[in-house]
Amino acid sequence: MKPLGRHVLAEIYGCDFEILNDVKRVEEIMVNAALESGAEVREYVFHKFSPQGVSGVVVISESHLAIHTWPELGYAAVDVFTCGDTVNPWDACNFLTREFGAKDMAAQETKRGILPGMAPPLVAVNS
Amino acid sequence: MKPLGRHVLAEIYGCDFEILNDVKRVEEIMVNAALESGAEVREYVFHKFSPQGVSGVVVISESHLAIHTWPELGYAAVDVFTCGDTVNPWDACNFLTREFGAKDMAAQETKRGILPGMAPPLVAVNS
Repeated sequence: MKPLGRHVLAEIYGCDFEILNDVKRVEEIMVNAALESGAEVREYVFHKFSPQGVSGVVVISESHLAIHTWPELGYAAVDVFTCGDTVNPWDACNFLTREFGAKDMAAQETKRGILPGMAPPLVAVNS
Repeated sequence: MKPLGRHVLAEIYGCDFEILNDVKRVEEIMVNAALESGAEVREYVFHKFSPQGVSGVVVISESHLAIHTWPELGYAAVDVFTCGDTVNPWDACNFLTREFGAKDMAAQETKRGILPGMAPPLVAVNS
């Protein structure tokens, strides 16, 4: 059985401070990342922290895009979860990397929703 | 250097259909999962799909909790990202597992935000 979804966790380094600290700009770039990757945007919410940093999420028909920024470190933690075959989560991650003026991106993909009767997709761990 | 955050991806199986298909109930349980784990809730947004399924996110001061449900499969895909030392993402996952009447949960934790100069936390892959 095919997994229900793909979840990419991306570490985006060396980003532009001003972009990562501008909640309206981050929101616009995130929504555009969803649209550029072919997703249908349902809802979104963004929050600016003091003295700096932005958190936000775009809910799409195909799941979500989330971001948390540390402008002072030039770092953004992004995750993109997509279901179905029409949207590639890597397209959104690559778009964000470009738009943030990032120097580097490292990421991993996890398959989500491989249902019982199959080997579970993840190892149960705790800490 | 310590990672900036911890990101747990949880596969929650064998959940109650009625709960997973009730957007208000899922929203309430997700907000309570954040509060029970000691997080500070900033914003949240939930969306009900037709004919079934719920997607939603709770933005917390410490990052986020996200969920996508497939009531017909008794399955919820959850991820909980927390920064700092005050909130344990596993507390939220365990709370959700209980509240959804789930039979099983399998999850993995990824460290987020290990900055350059160190080995990156994730291997760059693409597909």
